[in-house]
Amino acid sequence: MLLMIPGPVQLHERIIRAMARQMIGHRTADFSEILAFCVDVLKEVFGTSGDICLISGSGTAGMEAAIASFSNVKKIATIENGKFGERLGEIASRYTEVERLQFPWGESVDLDAVKRAFDNGCEAIAFVHNETSTGILNPAKEIARIAKEYDALVIMDAITSAGGDYVKMDEWGVDVAIVGSQKCLGAPPGLAAVAVTDRAWDCYNENCPYYLDLAAYRKKLKDMQTPYTPAVPLFFALAEALKIIKEEGLENRIQRHRILSAAVRKWAVEAGLELFPNLNEYSSYSNTVTAIKMPEGISDGELRGALRKEYGILISGGQGDLKGKIFRIGTMGNVGKFETVSTLAALEDILSRKKLINPALEYAQILLRDLP
Amino acid sequence: MLLMIPGPVQLHERIIRAMARQMIGHRTADFSEILAFCVDVLKEVFGTSGDICLISGSGTAGMEAAIASFSNVKKIATIENGKFGERLGEIASRYTEVERLQFPWGESVDLDAVKRAFDNGCEAIAFVHNETSTGILNPAKEIARIAKEYDALVIMDAITSAGGDYVKMDEWGVDVAIVGSQKCLGAPPGLAAVAVTDRAWDCYNENCPYYLDLAAYRKKLKDMQTPYTPAVPLFFALAEALKIIKEEGLENRIQRHRILSAAVRKWAVEAGLELFPNLNEYSSYSNTVTAIKMPEGISDGELRGALRKEYGILISGGQGDLKGKIFRIGTMGNVGKFETVSTLAALEDILSRKKLINPALEYAQILLRDLP
Repeated sequence: MLLMIPGPVQLHERIIRAMARQMIGHRTADFSEILAFCVDVLKEVFGTSGDICLISGSGTAGMEAAIASFSNVKKIATIENGKFGERLGEIASRYTEVERLQFPWGESVDLDAVKRAFDNGCEAIAFVHNETSTGILNPAKEIARIAKEYDALVIMDAITSAGGDYVKMDEWGVDVAIVGSQKCLGAPPGLAAVAVTDRAWDCYNENCPYYLDLAAYRKKLKDMQTPYTPAVPLFFALAEALKIIKEEGLENRIQRHRILSAAVRKWAVEAGLELFPNLNEYSSYSNTVTAIKMPEGISDGELRGALRKEYGILISGGQGDLKGKIFRIGTMGNVGKFETVSTLAALEDILSRKKLINPALEYAQILLRDLP
Repeated sequence: MLLMIPGPVQLHERIIRAMARQMIGHRTADFSEILAFCVDVLKEVFGTSGDICLISGSGTAGMEAAIASFSNVKKIATIENGKFGERLGEIASRYTEVERLQFPWGESVDLDAVKRAFDNGCEAIAFVHNETSTGILNPAKEIARIAKEYDALVIMDAITSAGGDYVKMDEWGVDVAIVGSQKCLGAPPGLAAVAVTDRAWDCYNENCPYYLDLAAYRKKLKDMQTPYTPAVPLFFALAEALKIIKEEGLENRIQRHRILSAAVRKWAVEAGLELFPNLNEYSSYSNTVTAIKMPEGISDGELRGALRKEYGILISGGQGDLKGKIFRIGTMGNVGKFETVSTLAALEDILSRKKLINPALEYAQILLRDLP
């Protein structure tokens, strides 16, 4: 099965092989060397000189670690224009007062509302950079800029952007950011990296969950260890995935993600389909996952079922209320032009048979032509 | 390097191969099938008909999930006669009032003190079954029996006992128990399974951490899924490890663990070394890890260093205040008689050279002779 979902992504053969190793002790120099390498490359991926805390757990664990550890604020604002934004609000509600800035899923963020939240006393903001559920890229730089006018803490979910799109924490003024292993980094699921700058510790909450207490992770970083037993095989895999990123070069990788998603969008538009996000001057389409409205005349089960059964390709449907209304194609991690063309060709075949679209594969192919 | 530490344990070749697989979607029937198999075998391992929640995270994540999710009690007692018992107290303190029953590390639990805790109003108790830091097996059955006289909730850390020693939740009256993947189950680290009986939900705390909220795990079990993206390769590995357990048979496996640890103890005593735990009529030596006092005349660095450098064998030292005072040999998971004899022979060589012990390998070998 070819995975074209927005994570877990297809693994490079080298990463699969990297996991096929006997265990090592996690309090050994061998493990520390692996961890140090991961920390080093992740700093580049996040664009920060801050600490990198590696948690054995999903991206959600990373988000909760970030919010809970730095929840010593009077009030936090959460931006919610999709499923993962809403999750931020739910998590934050367990720790402090929250002003939930709710927009319909797929709508762009209203920056005036962000400003008003700070005027209303919010001392921190948490938001999703790349909202996977809707295929929208929220304006991280602008949100951080506004927050910094109020000296507020900025927590950014970069779970599906870091490694595949620009994330420049230090330059933008993002204090805490999170990435998941199984998205643009191209590793298997099960690890979350939280990048933490010094500013964040002003808001440290010592009553956060024990397992997700980033102070414990930071302390153990001095010995290049983790506070609790790490998921060793996933570290083998992540190190190999990051080695591949180094070889490709972060800038090349980001350009590849941009071209792949542009090709998907170009195909969709030329085929007569409609992209789901409703953009404004600050937002943009995601460069790692594309959300397309389900055309009339075919159901989600028919479309994705045929893709799976006839072609062995897995894409995602809509989540929550968007179930049946959109489908989503991930172009993340180690996905290349062949996988992307195959997916679009298969979709085109299924949708053309029902005369629901105009053939448009060539438009995508033109964009992909020069991709290595 | 041969791992004879109390986890992560050496992996069976089949488990290594099981991880060397391409990713699959985590919302697919393929993943549900793997999860269902794990749940099924783990019920047998725990001796329960309760729910099995599988968390992507370390054993500590599992313990915190158990304590936090069921912390809606006036006061909880924690039994602390080692490092992991103390950790329970630290975790519980973040959620409710705690009566910490503290004993010197390696001492046995005083059951009268347990009784008094309930007399003082504790409505729950959390304890470590097999205290890895000291090599002692706490009297689970007796503790649960006392708790049940008071209708108190019983949470048991079975992280290093389940799969290698008897754990009979339903029979003993244990309401919640936890196992780690990288101990007696023989899988790599990174997964924790929490077994939850119906009784536990009387104490459900909806303000527990989002990622560790067992209600979310239980809800998703209906579709045989996990609430957040699971660490897929570790599930491949765990399923294979549990398949090996089924093939060996749980009872055979427990007997193997008992014989291996008995051989280590026999060797130590006959060699003139001293076992660390101080037993009473209710406690016993751990059947999965043996803690031995460091003899005078050699340092921890010398002993474990020589073992590592000359023989390629890794054992553990003491933790916390026990650093340098004890060494610990794990006989967990897929370890067999050859690994155990090799480790004891190597230790005997190093210690005999310094004339610190009497040769005693034959005593261990007699016990191991009939082991398959």
